[in-house]
Order: sequence, then structure tokens, then C-alpha cells
Amino acid sequence: MVIIKDDDVVELAHGAGGKVMDSLIKNFVLESFVKRSISKSIPFLGEGVGLEALEDGGSFQVGDFEIVVSIDGHTVKPVFFPGGDLGRLAVSGTVNDVAVMGAEPLVLACSVIVEEGYPLKDLKRILDSANATTEEADIVILTGDTKVMPRRELDEIVFTTAGIGIVESGKIVRNSGLKAGDTIIISGTIGDHGVALLAAREGLEFTTSLVSDVAPLSGLIREIRNLGQITAMKDPTRGGVSSALNDLAQSSKASIWIREESLPFKKEVKAAAEMLGIDPLEVTCEGKIIIGCKAEKAEEILDTLKKNKYGKDAAIIGTVKPPISGKPLVVMETSVGGKRVVEKPIGEPIPRVC
Amino acid sequence: MVIIKDDDVVELAHGAGGKVMDSLIKNFVLESFVKRSISKSIPFLGEGVGLEALEDGGSFQVGDFEIVVSIDGHTVKPVFFPGGDLGRLAVSGTVNDVAVMGAEPLVLACSVIVEEGYPLKDLKRILDSANATTEEADIVILTGDTKVMPRRELDEIVFTTAGIGIVESGKIVRNSGLKAGDTIIISGTIGDHGVALLAAREGLEFTTSLVSDVAPLSGLIREIRNLGQITAMKDPTRGGVSSALNDLAQSSKASIWIREESLPFKKEVKAAAEMLGIDPLEVTCEGKIIIGCKAEKAEEILDTLKKNKYGKDAAIIGTVKPPISGKPLVVMETSVGGKRVVEKPIGEPIPRVC
Repeated sequence: MVIIKDDDVVELAHGAGGKVMDSLIKNFVLESFVKRSISKSIPFLGEGVGLEALEDGGSFQVGDFEIVVSIDGHTVKPVFFPGGDLGRLAVSGTVNDVAVMGAEPLVLACSVIVEEGYPLKDLKRILDSANATTEEADIVILTGDTKVMPRRELDEIVFTTAGIGIVESGKIVRNSGLKAGDTIIISGTIGDHGVALLAAREGLEFTTSLVSDVAPLSGLIREIRNLGQITAMKDPTRGGVSSALNDLAQSSKASIWIREESLPFKKEVKAAAEMLGIDPLEVTCEGKIIIGCKAEKAEEILDTLKKNKYGKDAAIIGTVKPPISGKPLVVMETSVGGKRVVEKPIGEPIPRVC
Repeated sequence: MVIIKDDDVVELAHGAGGKVMDSLIKNFVLESFVKRSISKSIPFLGEGVGLEALEDGGSFQVGDFEIVVSIDGHTVKPVFFPGGDLGRLAVSGTVNDVAVMGAEPLVLACSVIVEEGYPLKDLKRILDSANATTEEADIVILTGDTKVMPRRELDEIVFTTAGIGIVESGKIVRNSGLKAGDTIIISGTIGDHGVALLAAREGLEFTTSLVSDVAPLSGLIREIRNLGQITAMKDPTRGGVSSALNDLAQSSKASIWIREESLPFKKEVKAAAEMLGIDPLEVTCEGKIIIGCKAEKAEEILDTLKKNKYGKDAAIIGTVKPPISGKPLVVMETSVGGKRVVEKPIGEPIPRVC
């Protein structure tokens, strides 16, 4: 039971994917939302992954299948950013959340809330981009909703997408699946989305190659999923790789050891992050996944990733070990031979990053 | 192909459930979202109700079942209104959209976007209310997402819910199901939500009995669904009963004849609507359904509705006939013996009503 004082308010960090958001969800949202079983008397309907699991989505069983559901509200600013836009982000973000659970994304439900006076041509550009991204991801927009808020009651537009996917019963990939000895792979360079977005917002334009990595990864994930032996997957969005690795370690009750030298960064991202004073490890990626797999399968998965345009910079970045003194820490072996704990950030440093 | 001029902007009416919204969706959203089939090679996966059907949701087949999906963004203001709040509305609105398609609602995905500085105790009150409503509706919140927007970039809070339900294949109830000779029933009094909301907003407080009807109707709908012979169902939300009847008539290529005398109104709603200068027929209901059924089943459905607390004011309000000169009109036989066409409104007269 959390005591809420009268003057407690929502802070930006409550939505920023780090420790503060964790406490909001664990002490507050989960307390409000009582976990109940699906009590319907429908044949073939069974249990799945619930809210309390704190995965990228939830699931329920229908016959021999599990239906996976994920939802994300997208508030990115600016709406059009280098390498993408709100429409591409809203589709990719949710497709990726469904796919990292090991499911095949099938359909999307889209809710757009837009400010009165927003240019119709920009709305059309966003919808067209969302549509092109669904084509790329081979999914269908099944249903939608449009609301308009009066001028100045919303800053431009937000786009919420719910994704529904399907997977054979028992084949869901969960954050808790890592075992000591597993290998940790990342599918490409780190921090591209957040750094590109912030650089655009700050007017930093020293290079045109600084673009978001936003992309739907369902195709890439299907290729590696078919190889088998994947023990966990997560897309490092808010709070970046630091947050995602900590989530995986905590859920799996294991420690994760990564090697700084092996982490793939675009040099422009490293340079811009330094200039902007942010740690690229704590910054949102929108087209990357972290994969845990059995060690003997790692090279095959890496090769498969590298053949895909969204995985060409993939790298093996670490190993899973038992917890350290009972703690599920993330430890980085630094380039100079030291070790440091990679803490879960307080929150994503960039507001409205996704 | 719609030509968009550079200075065309989104208007409030684009989200208001009437003729203007229809034109946005038909000429613009559907044009952006290419209808594609679900092309996955997954056994037992089949076609369902697509976006172009313009139903309350969409569906896809899994084995012997159809999975129904609906989404709604909720922007109601004030967040706490007589008879309800944003949380109860967000759950009820989506549960009802799934249920009117003849499906059993199972799970909900929730996305909350909240303004920095919003009181935590109010957020908790909204979440608790949403949770209580899911208990009443016997559904489970499966997954969620929280985003925070900086101060003044969002007016308080919006709450988007996606609902997923299940129905045996071939048993979906569609707007297009009405046939000449069918009876039209409404499950209770008209206009309560919109009028109560506007009265509260305008400080009109001449009666405490003026409250929103917001409620989850999955239980009520289950009871009448089990009786069979239902040909169409629709919840009259934005644009109210006028808009819903016109949608049903258009989809079914039929005319709907209603009798003014038979329309159930609370007298406080009629009085307040007159004072506020709005037509209660064009105003959002959030706890009502319009039902089309075979004439011989109408009395039994009516009796069943009346035994439920959410259906006690149910009434038979009209009949389905062939189109009039080829047009799917809604015609009202007035109390004084005349006839008038009930047009689809330009839009819901109240902004941020749901």
C-alpha cells in the first residue's frame, strides 16, 4: 500500500522507462489493477501472461495458440524527425513489442488524438507513413479511432497503437528466460533514435547521417526465431540498453556481463551524445533488439541477423552469469580493463522521445 | 483521391462522429490504410471484419473463433463528471464496442498519457475506477503503457483502451444485418451522458439526478445475445442516436422508422438539453445500445433487457423498412402525427464528450 500525499504529482520521469516509472507501475498501477483470471466459460480459453509479469505485452490462450497483445501511446516530438515520423514509430514500436514476445504480429488497432487546427496534409503524411510501415511489417490495420481536442489542449498529435499477434502455446519468449551461460546479442548500433531526435530538437546538424533507427523488426525476429534456442528478447526503448538489460537480469534472476569494447555505436551518435551530455546506453532505440540465446547458437543467430538490413551491425555483447551476491546486476567490463555496474537509469533523459 | 489544400486543418467536427468525421474517414483514413488480407501462413487463420467495414471494431479468425478488436481514445472533460469518470468511460466505451459486435469481451490493453504535474491521487482514482469497471465487466487488463507529456502540452490526461473479445466464427453481429420487418429497440434513456457532461461543464446544477449513463454493457448484451435473432447492435456514442441509426440504415441499405412518442428520455435530460440548446438525439450515450431483431423476438428481448439494471427503461422505438426511393433514411413519426427525416448530424455538438 503506497501512501499518496495530496500534493504528489506526475513527473516526467514517471513516463520515462527507468526506476521512477518502475515504482509508479509496481506500487501504483499494479495495485489498482487487480490480477484476475479470465473467468469466461469458453472452450479452449486458457491463461497467459498477465499484467503483473511486466513484459512488453500480455497474452491469453485460445485453443493451441496464445494471443499476444501490446499497447503503446506515442507522443514523439518533433512529429517528423530524421529517419522517421510519428506514424512509422507508432507502428514499429508496437509491432516490435509483440514480436519480442516470440509472437507473429497480425493486426493493429490505431487511435489518433489530434489538436484542432493541425494541418490535414501532415496528418495524411503520418497516416501514409504508418500504412507503409504496416506493409513492410506484413500486418493489417484492423480498426481505429480519431478524436480531436480543442486548440492548445494537446500539442499537435498523439498516436496510440495496440498490436495483436499469435504464437503456438508454450512458445512465448519471456524476459525471465535467461540462464547462466547464455549469450547476449544486440541486433545493431545503440542509441540512434534518441540521439537523432534530440540532435534535431536542439538544432544540432553537424551530420546528415544521424538518423533514427525506427523500423519494424517482425521480419528480422521471425528469421532468428525460426533458428530456435532464443531464451529472451527485448527491444531497448525508453531507458535504452541500460534499462532493458536490467529488466532482463531482474526478471531472469541472473547477472548480465557486457563488454564495453563490443558495444556497437555509430561514431556520429557517440559524438553527438557527448556534445548533448547524455549516455547513449540510456537512450531509446526504436529498431533494435537485445537477444539472449544458448551459447552454442549465438554465431548462427549473429550470422542470420547480419544478413538482414536491420541487423547488419549486430554484435555479441555479453554473457549471462548467476546473480552477484544474490543481486541481478548488469556489469560492464570497460575498455580499460575495469568493471562497473550499469544501473537502471532514473529515467530516459529525453522527454517525448517515443 | 481527395485533394488536400495546404491550409486545410483538422476541425473539432473531424472527431465528432457525424458527417464531417465520416468524410475524414472515408476519403482520407481509408485511402491511407490500404486494405490487405492477413497473409500469414499460420494454420487456422482466416479473414474477418476489416477496417473498410466501418464497424465498431474489426476481427480475424483463429480456428473456430473470431477475435474481435476495438480501440478508442478517451479525452473526456471534466475527467470526473456526474455519474462517472475517465477510467469508467475508457473501460466501458471499449467493452461496449466489442460487445455490440456479438463478441464476449475478454481483455483490455490500456494506454494512459498524462500531463506532467497531474495530481497522483487523481490518477490513482481514475485507475481504481477503471479497475472496478473491468471487474464489473468481467474482463482483465492484460497490458498497459504510461507516457508523460511536459506541462501545457496536454490538458490533464487521455486514456486509450483497446479491447479484445471472442465469438464463434460466423456469429459476429454487424451493422449491415438489418432486414425490412425487423424491430428496433433501445436499451434505455437517450442522451444522458452528453447532457450530464455539458450541464456539469456549464455549471448547470438544477438537479442532482442528471448523471451520465456510462456503464459496461457486456453482461446485458450477453443476456440478449443468448436469446438469438439479433440482426444488428450499435452503441449510440458520438453523434448519439441520430448518428447510430443512420449508420445502421446505411450499412443495412434499409430505412428505419422510429416513433417520437416511444423514445425514452429522462425529463431532466430533456429540460437541460432544451436549456443548453442541443438535441438530445444527437448527444452521446455511454451506457445504451440500439438493437435490431426479428419482430417475433422483440418482446422477449425487451423483457430480458428490463430485468437488467442497465436496461430497465428499454423500449421498442421503431421498425425497419425498405429504403425510401433507394435511400437508407431514418424517419421519425412525430408526436403530432407528422413525419421528418432524422439526418445524420454534422457532428456531436459537445467537444471532449468521450
